[in-house]
Order: sequence, then structure tokens, then C-alpha cells
Amino acid sequence: MKISVDTDSVVKPHMAAPSQNAHKTKAVQVGSVTIGGPEFTVIAGPCSIESAAQFSETAQAVKSAGAALLRGGVWKLRTSAHTFQGLGPEAFGFIKEITRQTQMSLVSEVTDPRQIEVLNDYVEMFQVGSRNMHNYALLKELGQTRKPVMLKRGFAAFVDEWIKAAEYITVGGNDQIVLCERGIRTFETTTRNTLDLNSVVYVKEKTHFPVIVDPSHAVGVREYVPQLALAAAAAGADGVIVEVHPRPAEALSDGRQALTISDFQQMMRKLERVLTALDRPLQTAEF
Amino acid sequence: MKISVDTDSVVKPHMAAPSQNAHKTKAVQVGSVTIGGPEFTVIAGPCSIESAAQFSETAQAVKSAGAALLRGGVWKLRTSAHTFQGLGPEAFGFIKEITRQTQMSLVSEVTDPRQIEVLNDYVEMFQVGSRNMHNYALLKELGQTRKPVMLKRGFAAFVDEWIKAAEYITVGGNDQIVLCERGIRTFETTTRNTLDLNSVVYVKEKTHFPVIVDPSHAVGVREYVPQLALAAAAAGADGVIVEVHPRPAEALSDGRQALTISDFQQMMRKLERVLTALDRPLQTAEF
Amino acid sequence: MKISVDTDSVVKPHMAAPSQNAHKTKAVQVGSVTIGGPEFTVIAGPCSIESAAQFSETAQAVKSAGAALLRGGVWKLRTSAHTFQGLGPEAFGFIKEITRQTQMSLVSEVTDPRQIEVLNDYVEMFQVGSRNMHNYALLKELGQTRKPVMLKRGFAAFVDEWIKAAEYITVGGNDQIVLCERGIRTFETTTRNTLDLNSVVYVKEKTHFPVIVDPSHAVGVREYVPQLALAAAAAGADGVIVEVHPRPAEALSDGRQALTISDFQQMMRKLERVLTALDRPLQTAEF
Amino acid sequence: MKISVDTDSVVKPHMAAPSQNAHKTKAVQVGSVTIGGPEFTVIAGPCSIESAAQFSETAQAVKSAGAALLRGGVWKLRTSAHTFQGLGPEAFGFIKEITRQTQMSLVSEVTDPRQIEVLNDYVEMFQVGSRNMHNYALLKELGQTRKPVMLKRGFAAFVDEWIKAAEYITVGGNDQIVLCERGIRTFETTTRNTLDLNSVVYVKEKTHFPVIVDPSHAVGVREYVPQLALAAAAAGADGVIVEVHPRPAEALSDGRQALTISDFQQMMRKLERVLTALDRPLQTAEF
Repeated sequence: MKISVDTDSVVKPHMAAPSQNAHKTKAVQVGSVTIGGPEFTVIAGPCSIESAAQFSETAQAVKSAGAALLRGGVWKLRTSAHTFQGLGPEAFGFIKEITRQTQMSLVSEVTDPRQIEVLNDYVEMFQVGSRNMHNYALLKELGQTRKPVMLKRGFAAFVDEWIKAAEYITVGGNDQIVLCERGIRTFETTTRNTLDLNSVVYVKEKTHFPVIVDPSHAVGVREYVPQLALAAAAAGADGVIVEVHPRPAEALSDGRQALTISDFQQMMRKLERVLTALDRPLQTAEF
Repeated sequence: MKISVDTDSVVKPHMAAPSQNAHKTKAVQVGSVTIGGPEFTVIAGPCSIESAAQFSETAQAVKSAGAALLRGGVWKLRTSAHTFQGLGPEAFGFIKEITRQTQMSLVSEVTDPRQIEVLNDYVEMFQVGSRNMHNYALLKELGQTRKPVMLKRGFAAFVDEWIKAAEYITVGGNDQIVLCERGIRTFETTTRNTLDLNSVVYVKEKTHFPVIVDPSHAVGVREYVPQLALAAAAAGADGVIVEVHPRPAEALSDGRQALTISDFQQMMRKLERVLTALDRPLQTAEF
Repeated sequence: MKISVDTDSVVKPHMAAPSQNAHKTKAVQVGSVTIGGPEFTVIAGPCSIESAAQFSETAQAVKSAGAALLRGGVWKLRTSAHTFQGLGPEAFGFIKEITRQTQMSLVSEVTDPRQIEVLNDYVEMFQVGSRNMHNYALLKELGQTRKPVMLKRGFAAFVDEWIKAAEYITVGGNDQIVLCERGIRTFETTTRNTLDLNSVVYVKEKTHFPVIVDPSHAVGVREYVPQLALAAAAAGADGVIVEVHPRPAEALSDGRQALTISDFQQMMRKLERVLTALDRPLQTAEF
Repeated sequence: MKISVDTDSVVKPHMAAPSQNAHKTKAVQVGSVTIGGPEFTVIAGPCSIESAAQFSETAQAVKSAGAALLRGGVWKLRTSAHTFQGLGPEAFGFIKEITRQTQMSLVSEVTDPRQIEVLNDYVEMFQVGSRNMHNYALLKELGQTRKPVMLKRGFAAFVDEWIKAAEYITVGGNDQIVLCERGIRTFETTTRNTLDLNSVVYVKEKTHFPVIVDPSHAVGVREYVPQLALAAAAAGADGVIVEVHPRPAEALSDGRQALTISDFQQMMRKLERVLTALDRPLQTAEF
């Protein structure tokens, strides 16, 4: 009695990208760091880059604690036009100095096709946020670059739409894509989103893309992030990306979900033990 | 026991746009047609403009049957990169001739900020599709234009996020905005989406924006569209936008939900009776 | 790439109940009132029967304003064990006197198979609430009675599960079933639930069951109920069930969504006009 | 701009049950097995008890592989009245012999208040299924027993509704309750349900109830169950309940999600390693 209704169906056209043979993840190289290989990758840093001091302090701390890559937003997509929208180009004055000092590669979000060119000088991986997963104009443009792209799942996207969105990048010739599960919007409002680890297991089996998890956005509550990061590792994710802030109470965005540096250090110690049990060592940035 | 988690909350910052006084919709002028005034507006036409013949035939038919404005996609957002993406600039060769002959204004979707300039010559109202409601780069750019914008609700957007997205346009100085409810994504998959008329009643009371309804995308099944169009009128919407195709079986996109011309004529006759009972006459394009 | 996962699938086994031929609703007789015939049926009354005075006042008022049937809860299902659970058997002391005086038949909810016998003396139609749609032990027991049953849709039930739940009643030999759409739980929390009129159109086409709509629970806000009742009629529902309370602020349950008597009278006047435009007269209880 | 709409709100009335102090889970004793103590508990067995041979073979196998408790349905809740509804009382002819031989306690679902008395002789823990979480008549009756109750989360229940449902049991004097997360219904249909581990972390912090996870129903695909069981352990759950069948292809219900005996053995070996890394040993039934 089901009616077939959608001529723009997600299952009809051939899917070039996903391999049907399980477990053959093709690793993606981000600077000197590999995502989707035998090791597990931790990406950490502030939600937004707020100042040279905040960015530098966080970068050094997460590196010491074992993060392999650095995250940090230059432009922020905010629900309201009246809230903090990121530092913007002001951040370019100090980003390079800090990534050089810490020898960490930066992952940062691109929210407009016209930002790609300038951002290209500062990042080793472009991030597409959840709200832009369906912004195909942006994805096509990223297909023209030769830098890896981390594609967050739309907060209400079917897994197959997410995989098909990745194809908008691959058709341009760029197949360096890392998928990122960051929680979906459901009826449940007790936490910010609902982390969907089913999707991680599914995408790992059905495609060759590395998959990482963002527990910070998926739950929205600092205290719950570490346990969900461990769960992501146990479910088979290739890495996690977490928000860390030296003083979350002063954060200009998403402070409620940012780990303190001490929280992050504790999480990393637990994560290492679980990864050892899973025969999957933690990858660390090289000095 | 609820935890407050989202610093980017949709309810915190002041909301300039919505009036707290009910029922003071500020009408929006689209060419010679008014949306949100005492009359009810029907927008009709094909999902995609496929050829001069198909577009012309549809335009004349919907005009004769009482449509006030013409819809038709030049660029289509499709889940898969491998399906029909719209005629693109090829359509510009004949659009003006047809809108002039039928004396109808065109509403068409913009999917990339870089399309605004060229599309501006052909449309009287820009349409932002559901998947781009969160594409704030695009919305800001539309705020710089002086043409009205029809902002479709994101298929998983809270009503307040939708209203706040409208603000991304108003901050640029363009307050000619028509909101369009087009169904939301829920657990229910029997039909394409779930039409949310609660949102229509709510937005009409809480904001001054005209609100129209797209029953075609909201249900995805041709046979069900007319009853939901009547329901939208009864709920207090300011208009509907429906897909019509002379031969839906041949449509290059969304044929399953397109009304035939005969379906559309029948729907219009019923709609006129219901509108009369609601003391809200049907607005027709002037010859 | 979709995986077929559910051996308890809602679409596999044969469905005895639904007719595949559209538009052949089989009317259900409730006392002297017909649901699903050429006329439209309004059921109104308090959420809970709170006292003889409140029940009597409401019954007389809704009858005068055009309601055909009376609603009123004896036992209430509440989320918390610590809130008002309904008057219970205390109500039986006065129900008969009031239904006799007003010559109206009562519809009331049964929440436990062991209540059926006693409730049978007081009601002309049993109501199964949304939270009990999956309580198959209760449904089977109602299949043994010879009174009609109004089966509310589970707030997260697929339409096909709702239809299959009706079969748990029909297998016992009772095919006097009225389906009631009362809103579904979605990500959207601006209103109490999301009224799903798509389901009404679908079920009317696919089954022979009469379908009514409960806009009170579907939106949860008094001011929005009348427009959604009109929308339900326009979508093709066979009736509506609405909550009315003489003094909603004093209601022991769901006061926020109860219409005042004056609200109800106004709604009925508008409804009659719309029904006339739809060629579907309002049915009134006979004296 | 949010409207407060629900007088039956889940957050208003005082909540007796949940402790506000984190991490003080009160263990529940099920026969000789403890759930919610320092050890992690695995419950395994068939979805339905189909025959003495099938039940006995499965019981012995899961015991050998490290399960502490046995699951097995006598009565099944099925969407359709026309599919297998469980063996029913026929199973009572051999259950005791098998639980005695294997020295395992049985957990089995109760679907009707009138089954409690007879089932009481055969089980050490009653199970309330997802579709009955809101069946308060059943919960109240279980409050009168002195056996522990495993309360599965309604597939569309807010976490707070789930906790409040537990109170319907505690008000009767029975506080031996184990909560079980089994996936929620969301827009995503790629897998059967969406496992919500956020809820596990939340409930563990906010209440004193032990929480276990059912990955079999949560994902619905055999191959994905083990990784989600590991994830549940890493997230802090007190145990898991999984479906095992000697020959899943022949299962009368839910065969697609049942582990083979060999799958289960492999899962247990991985689980033990992860539990060791988490300092939480696996509890095993005593011989």
C-alpha cells in the first residue's frame, strides 16, 4: 500500500561512489595526517576562532593531549543574523603562525563558494556544515579543488542523500572526502540532536569513505561528549571531531558543548584504552 | 529536567521581523499581483521549464483557469548529481516572450548567489527552495535585491528558524518576503512529506509575512493535491503554489505530483467555492 | 541501497480491511448519528468529565451550537501518575441523566480491557486513545463488543500501522470503526503535535473507514483549533472532535486547547459555510 | 515565541523517582544476577520461544558464550493480527525444565495485565515492550508485583515520558526497574530504528535506574548489532539485550536481526576486551 512518490528518489540513479564490498575504506590524507587508515584520528579545537590567544592556547593544549588535527571556525552559520558570525578575515592575520608553531593542519568551514579561494591558503581540509550539505552549488565548487573535504551530514538528511551529496564533489574530480555524522533532528529534544551511530556502521559497510563523528553537536552537553566519543570509536568510526575551549563559559558560540582542556585530556586517556582494546591505535600529529 | 543546550538558540535574540499583533499581514507586490491582501493568490506552472512549447502551453492553461502567477524552474536542485538539473540559461531564450504573451509574472528558484543577477531580468519574485533555507550566503545576497523573495520552509526547520532565515533577507533592506510551507520530513513516509498547516496558522498570527502553501511537494501525489490546496485555504493561507504539467508522465522532474491541466481546472472551481465561503475572493492576473 | 529490515513489516500480510476502490466509505452508526455518510459530524465536549454541572452545561451548549455527539473522558491517560486521572466511576452517577436530557450519545475513552463492561452501559462509541493504539489486548477485546470504536492514530504510528490496528478489532467481528487523526509527533515543537491531513486524504482513498480529525490535540492551542477544523473539513474528513469547556482556565486537563462555548459557536458558523461550499451538510443530533 | 501548550506536560509535576545526584545507579537483582552494579550484564536468547528444541539449544549456547540472563517471548506484539503471535501457554510446558537445566533466569514480555499471574511462575523479570510503555493499566499492575520489570522505551517517547512511565510502576511499591533503550522512530529509514545513546548517558546521569540497550531492535540488521553493542557499553550502559537464533532464516519473527550463535560468540569476545578497557567486567551466570 506504499505509494512511490518521489521522482527525485535517492535510490534510483546509479551510485558511482559507494563500493558494495564492505570494509574497504580508502584513506584520505590531510597534510601529514591520514583519516580512514588503521589509526583513529582526533580533530579538536574551538567552535569559533575568537582571538590569537584563544586559538593558540587551545591548539597547543589539544596537540599535547593527542589531537592529530585542529578545528576552528572562521565563518559561522548562525540561526539568527543578529548573533556572532565568526571573526571572518581578521583571523587570517594569525592562523598561519599558530598552525606553523603547533605543526597542526587546520580544518575549517566554508559557507559560501566565494570563500574557497581565500580559505585555501589556510586550511588542509575544507568543512561543509550540516546546513550546507544540500548546497550543491558549494559542493560542486569544492569538487574543483584538490583539498580534502569533510562533509557533515545534513541534520535531517537520509544516509543516502548524504552519500549522494558527496557525489556532487566527486563529479568535479575531487574524491578526497571524509563523511561526518553529527546527530540528526528527531522528536527528542532532551539533548541537542540525536547521535545516529547506525549511520556510521552503515556507511562504513556500504561506501569507501572514511567516517568520523562529531559528538559535540550531536549531544550539545559538555558532560556527555566523552562517553559518546568512546561509543563512536567502539561503533567503528575512523575518528572524532570535538569542540574544546579553554574557558567555555566565555565562548562566543556553542560554549555549552565545548570541553575544557582538562575534560579533553581525560577523554583522550579513556579513548586510548578503548582504542587499544579495539586494535586501533590513536594517530598523533608528528612534530 | 530539560537541559538548555543551544547557545545558537532560535528563541534568544530579539526578533525584529514578527509582529506580536495578530492578523496584520503586510501584503507583498509581485508585478501586478498582490500576495497577502484580501484576495487569495494561486501560483501554478511546471516544476521545471523543459521547452518553449511545454512552458507556453502550461502558462496559457493555468492563466485561463485562474492562476495569478506563473512558476517554473530554470535550475533544479536534485538529490543526485546524475539527474536532470534544469534547462539553465537555455530557458532564457524564450521565457520573456511567453511571460509577455500571457502577461504573467514568473517566480523561479535561485540556487546560487551568482545566479541572482541574470535571473533578475526574467522573474518578478525569487524563490528560495527548501534545501537552501539555511543557505545564509544566498539569503544575504537576496537582501540586496529589491525584488520579492518566496522563502520555502526548510524541510526540517522549526518555524522559528524559518522566520529567522527571513531576517537574513530583511537585514539587507529587502522586506518583501512571502513564506511558503511545503511539508516537513517526519517519520511518516506514506506520502512524500507531511504538510504542516499548524505552521501556517502560527506564522499568520505571529508575523506580518504573507504565507502560502505548496501542496504538491507536501504530499507528492497528484490525486491528493487538490484536497490539500482547499485545506490550506481553509486554514487561512494567503495562496497556494502548485505544479501543473500538460503531460505529467513525460515530466523531467516531479511528474508524480504534477496536476494535469484538467485536474487544475477542477481544483480551481472547488477552490473558488470554498474561498467564497471564507469571504476571500480569488485573485486573478489582469489582462 | 535500502536494506529490508523488518520481518514484522506493515506492508506484507494481506489486509482484509481496506478496500482498494476509492471513496466507498462505509458509514458507522452511533446511536441516531451516522459518521461517514453524506453529512459531516461534529463531536464536542470536555476533555474530562469533571462534575455533573460542568458536563451538563457543556453538553447543552455544544448541542445547541450544532454538535451531533458528545465527548467526555471518565478515565484519563496522563504522562504522570501524579496528575488528575479522571473522575472514574464517580461520573457514572450522573452521565445517564445528562445524556438523556440532552438526547446526545456519549463517546468516551477506554484505557483498560477491564473497563469495557462497565463503560458499555454509558457510551454509544468507545474511544481508543493515541497511546493505546498499539495495545492489541485492548483492541481484541473491543472486537468482541458490538459498539462502534473510534480508533485514534498513535502519535508516531505509520498510517499502515493504524489501519492494521483496526484489523485487531475487525478480526473479533466488530467492523464498526471510525479512524481519528489527532496529530503526530515530529521534530517541530512550536505546537503540541503536527496535524497530518495527508493521512486523512490517504486513508479516505485507501480504506472504507470513516475518518475524523481532532484538531484540539493536533495543535494544542485554543486559538488555532477553528482554522484547523475548517481545514479538516476541506481536506475531506467525515467529521471533527473538539474539546470545549465552559471555563477553560479551570479545566483539570488540557485547558489550553479547549474552546470556550463562544469559540465553539463561532467555529460552527464558519464550518457550516465551508461545508455548504463543499456540498456536505452538517449533521445535527435529532431531538 | 514558543507557546506553552501542554497541561499534561512531562516536566511539571515533581518526579519522585529520578535522583538528581549523578552516577548512583541502584542495582536491580534478577535471580542471582545483578543489573546496574559494577559488572556489565548480557541478556540473550530468541525473539520468540518457538519450540523446546530451539529454546534449549539457544539457551545453552548463549550461556556458554557468557550471557547472564535469558530472553524469550511467549506472547508477541505484532503489527498485524495475521502474523505469528507467539506460542502462548504452550511454551509453559517446557520453559521451567530448560531454565533449570541451564540455571538461567528468564526475562519475558507481558502484553496484557491478565498475563501477569501466570507468567510470574516462569520469569524472574517482566519485560514491557516499546508499544506498551504508555499502557499505564499494565504498568500499575506490575507495580503490585515484587518481581523486577524491564521497561523498554516507547519508540517515540521523550526520555522524560519514559522516566515518568517508570513511576507508574513505582507508585505501586515496586522500584525494581531496569530501563531499556531500543531505538526511536525518526525520519531515517535506512535502518529499522535510530539507536539513541544520548538517552543512555542522560538517564544514567539523571536517575538511579540501571539502563540497558537493545541493539537488535535499534538497528534491525544482524551484521550491525555487534558494533552497536560495543558502542552501548562504551557509552556507559549497564548491559545489552540481544536476539540470538540458531538458524535465523527459520525464525518466526525478527529473523533479520537475530545473531547466529557464532555471531554471538564473536561479539562476546570483542565485548569482553572493550569492557576490560572500561574497567567493567562482564557478569556471567553462575553454574
